[in-house]
Amino acid sequence: MEYKSILKNIARHITLNEEEIVLFTAVLKKKELKRKEVILKPEQPCPFINYVDQGVLRAYYTDKNGNENIIMFAVSDWWITDMHSFAGEKPSMLTIEAVENSIILQLHKVDLEKLFLKVPKFERFFRIMMQNAYVREQLRAVQNLSLTSEERYLHFTKKYPQFANQVPLKQIASYLGITPEFLSAIRKKLSTPNS
Amino acid sequence: MEYKSILKNIARHITLNEEEIVLFTAVLKKKELKRKEVILKPEQPCPFINYVDQGVLRAYYTDKNGNENIIMFAVSDWWITDMHSFAGEKPSMLTIEAVENSIILQLHKVDLEKLFLKVPKFERFFRIMMQNAYVREQLRAVQNLSLTSEERYLHFTKKYPQFANQVPLKQIASYLGITPEFLSAIRKKLSTPNS
Repeated sequence: MEYKSILKNIARHITLNEEEIVLFTAVLKKKELKRKEVILKPEQPCPFINYVDQGVLRAYYTDKNGNENIIMFAVSDWWITDMHSFAGEKPSMLTIEAVENSIILQLHKVDLEKLFLKVPKFERFFRIMMQNAYVREQLRAVQNLSLTSEERYLHFTKKYPQFANQVPLKQIASYLGITPEFLSAIRKKLSTPNS
Repeated sequence: MEYKSILKNIARHITLNEEEIVLFTAVLKKKELKRKEVILKPEQPCPFINYVDQGVLRAYYTDKNGNENIIMFAVSDWWITDMHSFAGEKPSMLTIEAVENSIILQLHKVDLEKLFLKVPKFERFFRIMMQNAYVREQLRAVQNLSLTSEERYLHFTKKYPQFANQVPLKQIASYLGITPEFLSAIRKKLSTPNS
């Protein structure tokens, strides 16, 4: 039952037969990560796309001042990679790290390309996945322009209820582009009745 | 030769036979746009993905203060839509407008879904297109964190040399998230020898 979760994830968009399931699961590499373990550093190649089976990962960009700017989170049943590096075979810009002890399944680019040829319906799966990722980024750009920090936080907790509990406040603040102090004030305000 | 340009665009990622070309071009709807003509308004449905055959289009988000924040440009040989609305069948958030007289080819969502079933390799084409769009947005988010306004402008002109001439300065400034005055000062500085 090692692949139950990822196969359910795939089945949301395409139907695989027994043989295709064998082909697919044969190329997955399971990796157990300790909290704070880093699976990708800037400037490294990023030949893997990672499915989070258990736990939480984050991807962040470290700016000139050494600040970690969180680009995305991935909780269980999410995929995460540095897509710029993965797709274009360029050095990575991001760090990807386990927020807590986690289990991931890695899919290597070379194996994915072979999979596209052997089981073309994976094109459909990844087309929908890329589409969703693009929509998420476009929506985030618009929400950064249109919503207050408080509204962005409320959207975030509504859309990703699992994050609010699993991810430290400091990291959520970074993702929302606000200071931890400001997020703490927002949380306090929202938890006060009749505020 | 009406479809020469779009077929070359498609051929970058997949190879269509004669029959598939007929199926594909049969569902394209050609539309001639006047400068400033709007093809999508906020709150409308967005059932089309648009290929720019000639001209320039822009997509922008109008904030509460009435400011137009440019989310993307599309010059000839680019695709443009409100992907959040198109993919999720939700009311549009964006306005899409012709920057100059333009010719577009529209592909309706219903026709695209049929095309995926009849010619599955279109899944591959749109998988790569969505992947590129996602990479572009991820890169933009990182560059907003990592580069100065001047560096962002230089990246922009290097990556999209055609935009610098075709698109008004005010709109490029909006896309880069800086004021037109500041962009004007950057341009002046860069055009001064030995600056």
